This record gives sequence, structure tokens and C-alpha cells, in this order.
Amino acid sequence: MDTITNRTFDEIQIGDSHQRIHTVREQDIQLFAAVSGDRNPVHLDTEYAATTPFKAQIAHGMYTGALISAVLGMDLPGPGTIYLGQNIAFKKPVYVGDELTVQLTVDSKHDSKPIVTLACTVSNQKGKTVASGEATAMAPTEKISVTAPPLPAIQLS
Amino acid sequence: MDTITNRTFDEIQIGDSHQRIHTVREQDIQLFAAVSGDRNPVHLDTEYAATTPFKAQIAHGMYTGALISAVLGMDLPGPGTIYLGQNIAFKKPVYVGDELTVQLTVDSKHDSKPIVTLACTVSNQKGKTVASGEATAMAPTEKISVTAPPLPAIQLS
Repeated sequence: MDTITNRTFDEIQIGDSHQRIHTVREQDIQLFAAVSGDRNPVHLDTEYAATTPFKAQIAHGMYTGALISAVLGMDLPGPGTIYLGQNIAFKKPVYVGDELTVQLTVDSKHDSKPIVTLACTVSNQKGKTVASGEATAMAPTEKISVTAPPLPAIQLS
Repeated sequence: MDTITNRTFDEIQIGDSHQRIHTVREQDIQLFAAVSGDRNPVHLDTEYAATTPFKAQIAHGMYTGALISAVLGMDLPGPGTIYLGQNIAFKKPVYVGDELTVQLTVDSKHDSKPIVTLACTVSNQKGKTVASGEATAMAPTEKISVTAPPLPAIQLS
């Protein structure tokens, strides 16, 4: 069991940053299809995807949004954060095997409320930005550490 | 196997709308945690979640973004759509058992490019809006019907 600790609004400084790195597996795309209901074959059917302008199976665009949201919930600000909104632009396709770096950087703190905005970029192993945008969140005002439950084992068949 | 058919840019009219209805299962939250990497216990630990202002386990905010994205890929415009961006505001918590209605309505067509914007709302069984925003997409210019592959069976343990 991992312990995750937040950064409170008072602790957060403009310019604070956190990144997560994730290599995209075919299973991630299948799970995103299952959880979203988006079974478009450009994501799930390698033969069909090869006939599209993308030339190969691609991840769902909003998969990168899911990765961004994880940094908010787990790291910056972390536990106790209330996610208020997200703007995101999908700039390039994401393929199976891509190593994605998801980086969030605090770019503003509200004057009177514990609200922060964070610049978000998701880049691939070639250094190309595949998605970018801005997150808005209410940061926690109390310092807490919580236990992150283990995920259930997932079997696809 | 289902066949899904797109609506081309030329076919799409301002005001065109599509909705999907989905009842949130605990498994959806676990899958979203797995695919995003967000294991914040407010989503996964019922005992912990009961101690938070939400009083119970809630879905990840971006889960509603995933549901919105599925309408774009599957229905409106459907196959061949290139998802360009999304703005989304998370307005209310989503709980296990909530019946969510995800509605997208075309609100603009670009003058010279096949780009559409769609107003997006996700509302619960009480009629409350839990998320809303705007999607931007490049609509397909060719009419196509494709086969939506079945999802793999998923077992959690």
C-alpha cells in the first residue's frame, strides 16, 4: 500500500511541477474503450486502423485527459483536491508503446479562494506534445496523507 | 458485432444532438483508476470516502470526459472524427449507481474547414448537471460505416 501526501494551497508555489511517465499498452486502450464505451475500430482493430490516416491503432484522445487527472488526484495537489475543470487540446496521435510524460505546473493561485490553475502537457518519447491544456482545481487546505488502495487485478480475455 | 455509421460534415446541422445513458458501476470506477493511474481513496475506498465531504465513493471527474468522448467517436460525428479539444467543468460529484445522460449538441460549423463544436452536458437521474463543456472535432467528410469490435471480457479480482 502506498501513502500519498498532498500539497496544501498554502504550500503550493507558482512554478511547482510534477510529472508522471507512462508507457501506453494495448491493454490501456482496451480498458479505456470499456470504461468510456468508445469502441471505434481506430482504437481497437489493428487491421482497420492501418487503413486510416493514422496508419496504426491509436489511443483515445481523452486517455491523455485521464493521465492528466491522475497527477491532480495523486500528486499535485493530491488527496483532498476538488477537480473543477479542464481545457485540453489533442495535438498528435498516441500509439501503443509510446512513452508519455505528463507534466503539470502550477501557473496561478487565486487571490481569495484556494483555487489553482495548472498548465498540463503530455509529450511522447520524441519530445512532441501530444496534448496540452489547463486544469483548474480547488487545492486542499489541510495537510493529509492517505493510503492509496491497490488496484484489483484485471484480466482481459 | 455492431455497425456504426458516421454523420459527415455536410450532413451535420447545427442543433443535431445525440445522447447516451449509462449507469455508473463500481467496476467503472475501478477501471478508470487502473487506466488513469489515479488511486486516490476517495474513488476506491468506501470507508475513507465516507469521511470526506462527498460522504461516499465518487467517480473520477474525468470519467465524465471519457463518456463525452465516446459519443464523438461512436455517434456524432462518429467514425472518422478527429477529436481536437475539449473544455469541461466538473460541477457535481458522480456516485456509484447514478444514471448519467450524456448529451452532445452541435452548436457551430466552421465556415471553411470541416470543424464542428458541440455543447456537452452530463446530467444525473435527478436532472442535475454533473459536468458540462464544449467539444471541438474535425468531422469526417466521407460517409463510412464500420464494425465496432466487441470488447474483451474483463474480470476484476
